[in-house]
Amino acid sequence: MATAAIRREQSTAQPGAPRTGRAARLSIRCGEHAGPTSGLAPGFVQANLAILPHRLAEDFLRFCQLNPKPCPLIGVSAPGDWRLPALGEDLDIRTDLPRYRVWRDGAIVEEPTDLMRWWRDDLVVFAIGCSFSFEQALIDDGIELRHFTCDCTVPMYRTSIETVPAGPFHGPLVVSMRPMTPANAIRAVQITTRFPSVHGAPVHLAKPEAIGIADIAKPDWGDAVPIGHDEIPVFWACGVTPQSVIMAVRPDFCITHYPGAMLVTDRRNSEFAIM
Amino acid sequence: MATAAIRREQSTAQPGAPRTGRAARLSIRCGEHAGPTSGLAPGFVQANLAILPHRLAEDFLRFCQLNPKPCPLIGVSAPGDWRLPALGEDLDIRTDLPRYRVWRDGAIVEEPTDLMRWWRDDLVVFAIGCSFSFEQALIDDGIELRHFTCDCTVPMYRTSIETVPAGPFHGPLVVSMRPMTPANAIRAVQITTRFPSVHGAPVHLAKPEAIGIADIAKPDWGDAVPIGHDEIPVFWACGVTPQSVIMAVRPDFCITHYPGAMLVTDRRNSEFAIM
Repeated sequence: MATAAIRREQSTAQPGAPRTGRAARLSIRCGEHAGPTSGLAPGFVQANLAILPHRLAEDFLRFCQLNPKPCPLIGVSAPGDWRLPALGEDLDIRTDLPRYRVWRDGAIVEEPTDLMRWWRDDLVVFAIGCSFSFEQALIDDGIELRHFTCDCTVPMYRTSIETVPAGPFHGPLVVSMRPMTPANAIRAVQITTRFPSVHGAPVHLAKPEAIGIADIAKPDWGDAVPIGHDEIPVFWACGVTPQSVIMAVRPDFCITHYPGAMLVTDRRNSEFAIM
Repeated sequence: MATAAIRREQSTAQPGAPRTGRAARLSIRCGEHAGPTSGLAPGFVQANLAILPHRLAEDFLRFCQLNPKPCPLIGVSAPGDWRLPALGEDLDIRTDLPRYRVWRDGAIVEEPTDLMRWWRDDLVVFAIGCSFSFEQALIDDGIELRHFTCDCTVPMYRTSIETVPAGPFHGPLVVSMRPMTPANAIRAVQITTRFPSVHGAPVHLAKPEAIGIADIAKPDWGDAVPIGHDEIPVFWACGVTPQSVIMAVRPDFCITHYPGAMLVTDRRNSEFAIM
Protein backbone atom coordinates (compact mmCIF):
# COMPACT_ATOMS: atom_id res chain seq x y z
CA MET A 1 0.00 0.00 0.00
CA ALA A 2 1.06 3.53 -0.67
CA THR A 3 1.77 5.77 2.28
CA ALA A 4 -0.33 8.84 2.98
CA ALA A 5 2.17 11.21 1.48
CA ILE A 6 2.30 9.08 -1.61
CA ARG A 7 -1.44 8.81 -2.09
CA ARG A 8 -2.17 12.50 -1.87
CA GLU A 9 0.24 13.27 -4.67
CA GLN A 10 -1.66 11.01 -7.00
CA SER A 11 -3.80 13.76 -8.48
CA THR A 12 -0.94 16.07 -9.32
CA ALA A 13 2.11 15.25 -11.38
CA GLN A 14 5.52 15.49 -9.78
CA PRO A 15 7.40 18.39 -11.41
CA GLY A 16 9.69 17.06 -14.10
CA ALA A 17 8.25 13.55 -13.65
CA PRO A 18 7.83 11.22 -16.62
CA ARG A 19 4.56 11.94 -18.46
CA THR A 20 3.90 8.49 -19.96
CA GLY A 21 3.94 4.96 -18.61
CA ARG A 22 6.86 4.02 -20.86
CA ALA A 23 8.92 7.06 -19.81
CA ALA A 24 8.22 6.21 -16.17
CA ARG A 25 9.38 2.60 -16.60
CA LEU A 26 12.54 3.64 -18.46
CA SER A 27 13.34 6.15 -15.72
CA ILE A 28 12.83 3.45 -13.08
CA ARG A 29 14.74 0.82 -15.09
CA CYS A 30 17.87 2.99 -15.39
CA GLY A 31 17.74 3.91 -11.69
CA GLU A 32 16.83 7.54 -12.30
CA HIS A 33 13.57 7.21 -10.38
CA ALA A 34 13.73 5.20 -7.17
CA GLY A 35 10.77 6.31 -5.03
CA PRO A 36 7.05 5.71 -5.03
CA THR A 37 5.23 5.73 -8.37
CA SER A 38 2.28 7.96 -7.55
CA GLY A 39 2.47 11.21 -9.44
CA LEU A 40 4.37 9.48 -12.26
CA ALA A 41 2.67 9.36 -15.66
CA PRO A 42 -0.64 10.91 -14.60
CA GLY A 43 -3.60 9.30 -16.33
CA PHE A 44 -1.81 5.97 -16.88
CA VAL A 45 -2.94 2.82 -15.08
CA GLN A 46 -0.78 1.56 -12.21
CA ALA A 47 -1.04 -2.00 -10.94
CA ASN A 48 -0.37 -4.22 -7.94
CA LEU A 49 2.17 -6.99 -8.58
CA ALA A 50 2.18 -10.60 -7.44
CA ILE A 51 4.64 -13.17 -8.77
CA LEU A 52 4.11 -16.84 -7.88
CA PRO A 53 5.75 -20.15 -8.74
CA HIS A 54 3.93 -22.04 -11.50
CA ARG A 55 2.88 -24.68 -8.98
CA LEU A 56 0.60 -22.12 -7.29
CA ALA A 57 -0.17 -19.94 -10.28
CA GLU A 58 -3.03 -21.92 -11.76
CA ASP A 59 -4.98 -21.89 -8.50
CA PHE A 60 -4.25 -18.21 -7.98
CA LEU A 61 -5.39 -17.38 -11.52
CA ARG A 62 -8.62 -19.24 -10.82
CA PHE A 63 -8.91 -17.40 -7.49
CA CYS A 64 -8.67 -14.05 -9.30
CA GLN A 65 -11.26 -15.08 -11.86
CA LEU A 66 -13.62 -16.21 -9.09
CA ASN A 67 -13.11 -12.96 -7.15
CA PRO A 68 -12.89 -10.23 -9.78
CA LYS A 69 -13.85 -7.34 -7.49
CA PRO A 70 -10.92 -7.66 -5.05
CA CYS A 71 -8.62 -9.25 -7.68
CA PRO A 72 -9.17 -7.49 -11.02
CA LEU A 73 -6.50 -9.15 -13.16
CA ILE A 74 -5.22 -6.83 -15.88
CA GLY A 75 -2.25 -8.94 -16.92
CA VAL A 76 -0.82 -12.44 -16.47
CA SER A 77 2.34 -13.89 -18.00
CA ALA A 78 3.32 -17.33 -19.27
CA PRO A 79 5.62 -19.22 -16.81
CA GLY A 80 9.10 -17.72 -16.83
CA ASP A 81 8.06 -14.79 -19.04
CA TRP A 82 8.94 -11.38 -17.59
CA ARG A 83 7.00 -9.48 -20.24
CA LEU A 84 3.40 -8.23 -20.20
CA PRO A 85 3.07 -6.79 -23.70
CA ALA A 86 -0.62 -5.98 -23.26
CA LEU A 87 0.35 -3.49 -20.56
CA GLY A 88 3.52 -2.09 -22.17
CA GLU A 89 5.40 -3.15 -25.28
CA ASP A 90 8.88 -3.09 -23.80
CA LEU A 91 7.80 -3.91 -20.24
CA ASP A 92 10.26 -6.01 -18.21
CA ILE A 93 8.74 -6.93 -14.87
CA ARG A 94 12.20 -7.72 -13.43
CA THR A 95 13.42 -4.12 -13.70
CA ASP A 96 10.46 -1.79 -14.17
CA LEU A 97 9.25 -1.35 -10.60
CA PRO A 98 11.27 0.85 -8.21
CA ARG A 99 11.34 -1.78 -5.48
CA TYR A 100 10.09 -5.30 -4.76
CA ARG A 101 9.49 -7.57 -1.81
CA VAL A 102 10.83 -11.13 -2.01
CA TRP A 103 9.11 -13.56 0.35
CA ARG A 104 10.05 -17.06 1.55
CA ASP A 105 7.57 -19.06 3.62
CA GLY A 106 5.55 -15.89 4.31
CA ALA A 107 8.50 -13.78 5.50
CA ILE A 108 10.26 -10.94 3.67
CA VAL A 109 13.82 -11.95 2.80
CA GLU A 110 14.83 -8.96 0.65
CA GLU A 111 13.51 -5.69 -0.77
CA PRO A 112 15.55 -5.41 -3.98
CA THR A 113 15.33 -2.73 -6.67
CA ASP A 114 15.38 -5.34 -9.41
CA LEU A 115 14.67 -9.08 -9.72
CA MET A 116 17.61 -10.13 -11.92
CA ARG A 117 19.11 -12.45 -9.31
CA TRP A 118 15.70 -13.72 -8.13
CA TRP A 119 14.13 -14.55 -11.47
CA ARG A 120 13.20 -18.20 -12.11
CA ASP A 121 11.83 -20.00 -15.12
CA ASP A 122 8.75 -21.14 -13.24
CA LEU A 123 7.55 -17.69 -12.13
CA VAL A 124 4.17 -16.35 -13.28
CA VAL A 125 3.45 -12.61 -13.15
CA PHE A 126 0.07 -11.24 -12.05
CA ALA A 127 -0.77 -7.54 -12.52
CA ILE A 128 -3.85 -6.57 -10.54
CA GLY A 129 -5.73 -3.29 -10.97
CA CYS A 130 -5.52 -0.79 -8.11
CA SER A 131 -7.73 1.96 -6.76
CA PHE A 132 -5.59 4.84 -8.12
CA SER A 133 -7.59 4.85 -11.38
CA PHE A 134 -11.04 5.09 -9.80
CA GLU A 135 -9.85 7.52 -7.14
CA GLN A 136 -8.62 9.83 -9.88
CA ALA A 137 -12.03 9.62 -11.56
CA LEU A 138 -13.73 10.52 -8.25
CA ILE A 139 -11.40 13.48 -7.68
CA ASP A 140 -11.94 14.66 -11.25
CA ASP A 141 -15.66 14.69 -10.47
CA GLY A 142 -15.09 16.93 -7.44
CA ILE A 143 -15.62 14.24 -4.78
CA GLU A 144 -13.46 14.70 -1.69
CA LEU A 145 -11.44 11.68 -0.63
CA ARG A 146 -11.04 11.90 3.13
CA HIS A 147 -7.69 10.08 3.33
CA PHE A 148 -6.27 12.65 0.90
CA THR A 149 -7.68 15.50 3.00
CA CYS A 150 -6.32 13.90 6.18
CA ASP A 151 -2.99 13.11 4.52
CA CYS A 152 -3.12 9.48 5.56
CA THR A 153 -3.54 5.98 4.13
CA VAL A 154 -7.05 4.84 3.19
CA PRO A 155 -8.56 2.76 6.04
CA MET A 156 -8.96 -0.95 5.23
CA TYR A 157 -10.94 -3.62 7.05
CA ARG A 158 -11.14 -7.39 7.13
CA THR A 159 -14.82 -8.32 6.55
CA SER A 160 -17.07 -11.27 7.32
CA ILE A 161 -17.50 -11.78 3.56
CA GLU A 162 -15.55 -14.84 2.42
CA THR A 163 -13.85 -14.86 -0.95
CA VAL A 164 -14.60 -17.82 -3.23
CA PRO A 165 -11.77 -20.29 -2.53
CA ALA A 166 -9.55 -21.88 -5.20
CA GLY A 167 -7.01 -24.54 -4.23
CA PRO A 168 -5.13 -23.29 -1.15
CA PHE A 169 -6.27 -19.69 -1.66
CA HIS A 170 -9.08 -18.55 0.60
CA GLY A 171 -9.79 -15.88 3.19
CA PRO A 172 -11.89 -12.85 3.98
CA LEU A 173 -12.59 -10.00 1.60
CA VAL A 174 -10.67 -6.87 2.59
CA VAL A 175 -12.36 -3.54 1.84
CA SER A 176 -11.20 0.06 1.74
CA MET A 177 -13.51 2.76 3.10
CA ARG A 178 -14.20 6.31 1.94
CA PRO A 179 -16.78 8.43 3.85
CA MET A 180 -19.18 10.39 1.64
CA THR A 181 -22.52 12.17 1.72
CA PRO A 182 -25.31 9.96 0.35
CA ALA A 183 -25.47 12.07 -2.85
CA ASN A 184 -21.73 11.63 -3.42
CA ALA A 185 -22.03 7.92 -2.60
CA ILE A 186 -24.63 7.54 -5.37
CA ARG A 187 -22.39 9.48 -7.77
CA ALA A 188 -19.40 7.34 -6.71
CA VAL A 189 -21.35 4.16 -7.52
CA GLN A 190 -22.00 5.55 -11.00
CA ILE A 191 -18.39 6.63 -11.57
CA THR A 192 -16.67 3.51 -10.26
CA THR A 193 -19.12 1.19 -12.05
CA ARG A 194 -17.39 2.40 -15.22
CA PHE A 195 -14.11 0.85 -14.00
CA PRO A 196 -14.71 -2.87 -13.38
CA SER A 197 -11.02 -3.68 -13.93
CA VAL A 198 -9.95 -1.47 -11.02
CA HIS A 199 -12.34 -2.83 -8.34
CA GLY A 200 -15.49 -1.29 -9.89
CA ALA A 201 -18.55 -0.31 -7.87
CA PRO A 202 -18.60 -0.38 -4.06
CA VAL A 203 -19.44 -3.72 -2.46
CA HIS A 204 -21.23 -2.15 0.51
CA LEU A 205 -22.28 1.14 2.06
CA ALA A 206 -23.61 2.35 5.41
CA LYS A 207 -24.03 -0.34 8.13
CA PRO A 208 -20.41 -1.50 8.68
CA GLU A 209 -21.62 -4.14 11.18
CA ALA A 210 -23.48 -5.93 8.36
CA ILE A 211 -20.11 -6.96 6.86
CA GLY A 212 -18.43 -7.79 10.16
CA ILE A 213 -16.75 -4.46 10.90
CA ALA A 214 -17.17 -4.05 14.66
CA ASP A 215 -15.46 -0.68 15.02
CA ILE A 216 -15.12 1.65 12.04
CA ALA A 217 -12.58 3.71 14.03
CA LYS A 218 -10.20 0.74 14.11
CA PRO A 219 -9.14 -0.27 10.60
CA ASP A 220 -7.08 -3.45 10.18
CA TRP A 221 -4.73 -1.62 7.78
CA GLY A 222 -4.22 2.07 7.04
CA ASP A 223 -5.49 4.93 9.16
CA ALA A 224 -8.87 5.78 10.69
CA VAL A 225 -10.53 8.84 9.11
CA PRO A 226 -13.38 10.96 10.51
CA ILE A 227 -16.92 10.36 9.21
CA GLY A 228 -19.27 13.38 9.29
CA HIS A 229 -22.74 13.05 10.83
CA ASP A 230 -24.20 13.64 7.36
CA GLU A 231 -22.00 10.97 5.78
CA ILE A 232 -22.00 7.20 5.34
CA PRO A 233 -19.02 4.89 4.96
CA VAL A 234 -18.68 3.52 1.40
CA PHE A 235 -16.74 0.27 0.98
CA TRP A 236 -14.80 -0.97 -2.04
CA ALA A 237 -13.16 -4.37 -2.55
CA CYS A 238 -9.45 -3.85 -1.91
CA GLY A 239 -6.29 -5.12 -3.57
CA VAL A 240 -4.98 -6.05 -0.14
CA THR A 241 -7.30 -9.05 -0.39
CA PRO A 242 -5.09 -11.06 -2.81
CA GLN A 243 -1.94 -10.06 -0.89
CA SER A 244 -3.48 -11.18 2.37
CA VAL A 245 -4.74 -14.41 0.80
CA ILE A 246 -1.32 -15.21 -0.68
CA MET A 247 0.45 -14.53 2.63
CA ALA A 248 -1.98 -16.85 4.45
CA VAL A 249 -0.78 -19.68 2.20
CA ARG A 250 2.84 -18.86 3.17
CA PRO A 251 4.19 -19.90 -0.25
CA ASP A 252 7.77 -21.13 -0.18
CA PHE A 253 8.57 -18.34 -2.64
CA CYS A 254 6.80 -15.27 -3.99
CA ILE A 255 7.40 -11.66 -4.97
CA THR A 256 5.20 -8.57 -4.61
CA HIS A 257 5.65 -4.86 -5.25
CA TYR A 258 7.01 -2.76 -2.39
CA PRO A 259 4.16 -0.66 -0.93
CA GLY A 260 3.63 2.40 -3.12
CA ALA A 261 6.09 1.19 -5.76
CA MET A 262 3.61 0.03 -8.38
CA LEU A 263 3.83 -1.17 -11.96
CA VAL A 264 3.21 1.82 -14.28
CA THR A 265 1.60 0.69 -17.55
CA ASP A 266 1.03 2.17 -21.01
CA ARG A 267 -2.73 1.82 -20.67
CA ARG A 268 -4.67 4.98 -19.92
CA ASN A 269 -7.21 5.05 -17.08
CA SER A 270 -9.83 6.05 -19.65
CA GLU A 271 -9.17 2.85 -21.64
CA PHE A 272 -10.35 0.89 -18.62
CA ALA A 273 -13.69 2.69 -18.53
CA ILE A 274 -16.41 0.48 -20.00
CA MET A 275 -18.23 3.51 -21.38
CA MET B 1 -50.87 7.34 -8.07
CA ALA B 2 -51.73 3.75 -8.65
CA THR B 3 -53.30 1.80 -5.83
CA ALA B 4 -51.56 -1.14 -4.25
CA ALA B 5 -53.54 -3.68 -6.19
CA ILE B 6 -52.66 -1.88 -9.37
CA ARG B 7 -48.96 -1.63 -8.71
CA ARG B 8 -48.39 -5.25 -7.87
CA GLU B 9 -49.85 -6.37 -11.17
CA GLN B 10 -47.29 -4.36 -13.07
CA SER B 11 -44.86 -7.21 -13.50
CA THR B 12 -47.38 -9.64 -14.92
CA ALA B 13 -49.63 -9.10 -17.88
CA GLN B 14 -53.37 -9.22 -17.36
CA PRO B 15 -54.72 -12.33 -19.13
CA GLY B 16 -56.09 -11.33 -22.52
CA ALA B 17 -54.77 -7.80 -22.08
CA PRO B 18 -53.43 -5.83 -25.05
CA ARG B 19 -49.79 -6.72 -25.71
CA THR B 20 -48.65 -3.46 -27.35
CA GLY B 21 -49.00 0.21 -26.51
CA ARG B 22 -51.09 0.84 -29.60
CA ALA B 23 -53.44 -2.08 -28.88
CA ALA B 24 -53.83 -0.78 -25.31
CA ARG B 25 -54.72 2.70 -26.49
CA LEU B 26 -57.21 1.43 -29.07
CA SER B 27 -58.85 -0.75 -26.43
CA ILE B 28 -59.10 2.25 -24.09
CA ARG B 29 -60.28 4.59 -26.86
CA CYS B 30 -63.20 2.36 -27.83
CA GLY B 31 -64.23 1.89 -24.21
CA GLU B 32 -63.26 -1.78 -24.09
CA HIS B 33 -60.70 -1.17 -21.32
CA ALA B 34 -61.78 1.19 -18.57
CA GLY B 35 -59.60 0.38 -15.53
CA PRO B 36 -56.04 1.05 -14.47
CA THR B 37 -53.30 0.64 -17.07
CA SER B 38 -50.78 -1.42 -15.16
CA GLY B 39 -50.47 -4.88 -16.62
CA LEU B 40 -51.39 -3.53 -20.07
CA ALA B 41 -48.76 -3.79 -22.82
CA PRO B 42 -45.95 -5.15 -20.63
CA GLY B 43 -42.57 -3.71 -21.57
CA PHE B 44 -44.03 -0.50 -23.01
CA VAL B 45 -43.44 2.86 -21.33
CA GLN B 46 -46.32 4.41 -19.42
CA ALA B 47 -46.39 8.12 -18.55
CA ASN B 48 -47.88 10.66 -16.18
CA LEU B 49 -50.04 13.29 -17.86
CA ALA B 50 -50.33 17.02 -17.22
CA ILE B 51 -52.24 19.38 -19.51
CA LEU B 52 -51.91 23.12 -18.94
CA PRO B 53 -53.13 26.29 -20.65
CA HIS B 54 -50.53 27.86 -22.94
CA ARG B 55 -50.24 30.82 -20.54
CA LEU B 56 -48.62 28.49 -17.95
CA ALA B 57 -47.03 25.99 -20.30
CA GLU B 58 -43.83 27.83 -21.07
CA ASP B 59 -42.93 28.21 -17.40
CA PHE B 60 -43.86 24.60 -16.70
CA LEU B 61 -41.73 23.38 -19.59
CA ARG B 62 -38.85 25.37 -18.19
CA PHE B 63 -39.59 23.93 -14.73
CA CYS B 64 -39.34 20.39 -16.12
CA GLN B 65 -36.08 21.15 -17.88
CA LEU B 66 -34.64 22.63 -14.69
CA ASN B 67 -35.78 19.64 -12.62
CA PRO B 68 -35.27 16.62 -14.86
CA LYS B 69 -35.07 14.03 -12.06
CA PRO B 70 -38.61 14.58 -10.67
CA CYS B 71 -39.98 15.81 -14.05
CA PRO B 72 -38.49 13.67 -16.82
CA LEU B 73 -40.36 15.01 -19.86
CA ILE B 74 -40.81 12.37 -22.52
CA GLY B 75 -43.30 14.30 -24.66
CA VAL B 76 -44.72 17.81 -25.07
CA SER B 77 -47.26 19.01 -27.65
CA ALA B 78 -47.74 22.26 -29.55
CA PRO B 79 -50.61 24.39 -28.13
CA GLY B 80 -53.97 22.85 -29.02
CA ASP B 81 -52.36 19.71 -30.45
CA TRP B 82 -53.71 16.50 -28.93
CA ARG B 83 -51.12 14.33 -30.63
CA LEU B 84 -47.73 13.12 -29.37
CA PRO B 85 -46.39 11.29 -32.44
CA ALA B 86 -43.02 10.59 -30.82
CA LEU B 87 -44.80 8.43 -28.24
CA GLY B 88 -47.41 6.79 -30.55
CA GLU B 89 -48.22 7.44 -34.19
CA ASP B 90 -51.99 7.52 -33.83
CA LEU B 91 -52.00 8.76 -30.24
CA ASP B 92 -54.93 11.05 -29.29
CA ILE B 93 -54.44 12.39 -25.79
CA ARG B 94 -58.16 13.27 -25.56
CA THR B 95 -59.32 9.67 -25.74
CA ASP B 96 -56.40 7.35 -25.04
CA LEU B 97 -56.32 7.35 -21.24
CA PRO B 98 -59.00 5.42 -19.30
CA ARG B 99 -59.85 8.35 -17.06
CA TYR B 100 -58.78 11.96 -16.42
CA ARG B 101 -59.06 14.57 -13.71
CA VAL B 102 -60.19 18.05 -14.71
CA TRP B 103 -59.21 20.77 -12.26
CA ARG B 104 -60.38 24.38 -11.80
CA ASP B 105 -58.58 26.63 -9.32
CA GLY B 106 -56.95 23.60 -7.71
CA ALA B 107 -60.16 21.60 -7.23
CA ILE B 108 -61.36 18.53 -9.14
CA VAL B 109 -64.47 19.38 -11.15
CA GLU B 110 -64.86 16.15 -13.14
CA GLU B 111 -63.24 12.77 -13.70
CA PRO B 112 -64.23 12.07 -17.32
CA THR B 113 -63.29 9.08 -19.49
CA ASP B 114 -62.44 11.37 -22.42
CA LEU B 115 -61.60 15.06 -22.93
CA MET B 116 -63.72 15.80 -26.01
CA ARG B 117 -65.87 18.38 -24.26
CA TRP B 118 -62.95 19.83 -22.28
CA TRP B 119 -60.43 20.27 -25.07
CA ARG B 120 -59.28 23.83 -25.83
CA ASP B 121 -57.04 25.29 -28.52
CA ASP B 122 -54.62 26.69 -25.92
CA LEU B 123 -53.89 23.42 -24.09
CA VAL B 124 -50.35 22.01 -24.01
CA VAL B 125 -49.79 18.32 -23.23
CA PHE B 126 -46.92 17.13 -21.02
CA ALA B 127 -46.06 13.42 -20.79
CA ILE B 128 -43.72 12.74 -17.87
CA GLY B 129 -41.88 9.46 -17.33
CA CYS B 130 -42.99 7.31 -14.40
CA SER B 131 -41.34 4.78 -12.12
CA PHE B 132 -43.02 1.74 -13.73
CA SER B 133 -40.15 1.39 -16.21
CA PHE B 134 -37.34 1.37 -13.67
CA GLU B 135 -39.32 -0.75 -11.20
CA GLN B 136 -39.71 -3.39 -13.91
CA ALA B 137 -35.95 -3.30 -14.50
CA LEU B 138 -35.33 -3.78 -10.75
CA ILE B 139 -37.79 -6.70 -10.57
CA ASP B 140 -36.23 -8.27 -13.67
CA ASP B 141 -32.90 -8.16 -11.79
CA GLY B 142 -34.39 -10.03 -8.84
CA ILE B 143 -34.64 -7.05 -6.47
CA GLU B 144 -37.63 -7.19 -4.14
CA LEU B 145 -39.82 -4.09 -4.09
CA ARG B 146 -41.32 -3.89 -0.61
CA HIS B 147 -44.54 -2.11 -1.65
CA PHE B 148 -45.22 -4.96 -4.07
CA THR B 149 -44.57 -7.53 -1.34
CA CYS B 150 -46.79 -5.60 1.07
CA ASP B 151 -49.45 -5.08 -1.59
CA CYS B 152 -49.56 -1.34 -0.99
CA THR B 153 -48.66 1.98 -2.62
CA VAL B 154 -45.03 3.07 -2.58
CA PRO B 155 -44.39 5.50 0.33
CA MET B 156 -43.71 9.10 -0.75
CA TYR B 157 -42.30 11.98 1.26
CA ARG B 158 -42.05 15.75 0.95
CA THR B 159 -38.36 16.65 1.42
CA SER B 160 -36.38 19.70 2.47
CA ILE B 161 -34.83 19.78 -1.02
CA GLU B 162 -36.29 22.65 -3.04
CA THR B 163 -36.89 22.25 -6.75
CA VAL B 164 -35.42 24.93 -9.02
CA PRO B 165 -38.29 27.43 -9.51
CA ALA B 166 -39.57 28.66 -12.90
CA GLY B 167 -42.23 31.36 -13.06
CA PRO B 168 -44.97 30.46 -10.56
CA PHE B 169 -43.81 26.85 -10.26
CA HIS B 170 -41.82 26.03 -7.16
CA GLY B 171 -41.99 23.69 -4.19
CA PRO B 172 -40.28 20.81 -2.44
CA LEU B 173 -38.96 17.71 -4.15
CA VAL B 174 -41.16 14.68 -3.43
CA VAL B 175 -39.38 11.32 -3.23
CA SER B 176 -40.53 7.71 -3.26
CA MET B 177 -38.79 5.23 -0.97
CA ARG B 178 -37.86 1.59 -1.43
CA PRO B 179 -36.01 -0.27 1.39
CA MET B 180 -33.09 -2.43 0.25
CA THR B 181 -29.97 -4.12 1.54
CA PRO B 182 -26.85 -2.04 0.82
CA ALA B 183 -25.78 -4.50 -1.90
CA ASN B 184 -29.17 -4.20 -3.62
CA ALA B 185 -29.07 -0.40 -3.20
CA ILE B 186 -25.74 -0.32 -5.07
CA ARG B 187 -27.19 -2.57 -7.79
CA ALA B 188 -30.31 -0.37 -7.95
CA VAL B 189 -28.16 2.73 -8.49
CA GLN B 190 -26.52 0.96 -11.42
CA ILE B 191 -29.80 -0.24 -12.93
CA THR B 192 -31.79 2.98 -12.58
CA THR B 193 -28.87 5.13 -13.80
CA ARG B 194 -29.59 3.51 -17.18
CA PHE B 195 -33.05 5.12 -17.21
CA PRO B 196 -32.59 8.91 -16.86
CA SER B 197 -35.94 9.58 -18.57
CA VAL B 198 -37.86 7.71 -15.89
CA HIS B 199 -36.36 9.41 -12.81
CA GLY B 200 -32.92 7.78 -13.14
CA ALA B 201 -30.63 7.08 -10.19
CA PRO B 202 -31.72 7.59 -6.57
CA VAL B 203 -31.35 11.11 -5.18
CA HIS B 204 -30.57 9.93 -1.66
CA LEU B 205 -30.09 6.87 0.52
CA ALA B 206 -29.85 6.08 4.22
CA LYS B 207 -30.21 9.08 6.61
CA PRO B 208 -33.81 10.23 5.91
CA GLU B 209 -33.35 13.16 8.33
CA ALA B 210 -30.71 14.64 6.01
CA ILE B 211 -33.44 15.44 3.46
CA GLY B 212 -36.01 16.62 5.99
CA ILE B 213 -37.90 13.36 6.56
CA ALA B 214 -38.62 13.40 10.29
CA ASP B 215 -40.45 10.05 10.51
CA ILE B 216 -39.92 7.39 7.86
CA ALA B 217 -42.97 5.55 9.22
CA LYS B 218 -45.22 8.46 8.22
CA PRO B 219 -45.15 9.03 4.48
CA ASP B 220 -46.93 12.11 3.07
CA TRP B 221 -48.49 9.98 0.32
CA GLY B 222 -48.81 6.22 -0.12
CA ASP B 223 -48.29 3.64 2.61
CA ALA B 224 -45.56 3.03 5.18
CA VAL B 225 -43.55 -0.15 4.54
CA PRO B 226 -41.30 -2.07 6.97
CA ILE B 227 -37.52 -1.56 6.72
CA GLY B 228 -35.37 -4.50 7.88
CA HIS B 229 -32.50 -3.95 10.33
CA ASP B 230 -30.09 -4.90 7.55
CA GLU B 231 -31.66 -2.46 5.08
CA ILE B 232 -31.44 1.22 4.23
CA PRO B 233 -34.13 3.42 2.69
CA VAL B 234 -33.37 4.37 -0.93
CA PHE B 235 -35.03 7.50 -2.30
CA TRP B 236 -35.95 8.36 -5.88
CA ALA B 237 -37.28 11.64 -7.25
CA CYS B 238 -41.02 11.14 -7.70
CA GLY B 239 -43.52 12.15 -10.39
CA VAL B 240 -45.79 13.44 -7.62
CA THR B 241 -43.42 16.46 -7.50
CA PRO B 242 -44.76 18.11 -10.70
CA GLN B 243 -48.37 17.30 -9.72
CA SER B 244 -47.86 18.83 -6.29
CA VAL B 245 -46.10 21.87 -7.78
CA ILE B 246 -48.92 22.43 -10.29
CA MET B 247 -51.60 22.12 -7.62
CA ALA B 248 -49.79 24.66 -5.43
CA VAL B 249 -50.20 27.20 -8.27
CA ARG B 250 -53.96 26.46 -8.33
CA PRO B 251 -54.19 27.05 -12.08
CA ASP B 252 -57.62 28.24 -13.25
CA PHE B 253 -57.70 25.16 -15.48
CA CYS B 254 -55.68 21.98 -15.87
CA ILE B 255 -56.03 18.28 -16.56
CA THR B 256 -54.10 15.30 -15.19
CA HIS B 257 -54.41 11.53 -15.51
CA TYR B 258 -56.62 9.77 -12.97
CA PRO B 259 -54.38 7.89 -10.47
CA GLY B 260 -53.30 4.59 -12.04
CA ALA B 261 -54.81 5.45 -15.42
CA MET B 262 -51.62 6.32 -17.29
CA LEU B 263 -50.75 7.09 -20.88
CA VAL B 264 -49.53 3.86 -22.54
CA THR B 265 -46.98 4.60 -25.28
CA ASP B 266 -45.44 2.75 -28.22
CA ARG B 267 -41.95 3.19 -26.82
CA ARG B 268 -40.38 0.18 -25.15
CA ASN B 269 -38.82 0.47 -21.69
CA SER B 270 -35.56 -0.78 -23.22
CA GLU B 271 -35.53 2.16 -25.67
CA PHE B 272 -35.26 4.48 -22.69
CA ALA B 273 -32.14 2.77 -21.39
CA ILE B 274 -29.06 4.83 -22.24
CA MET B 275 -26.95 1.68 -22.61
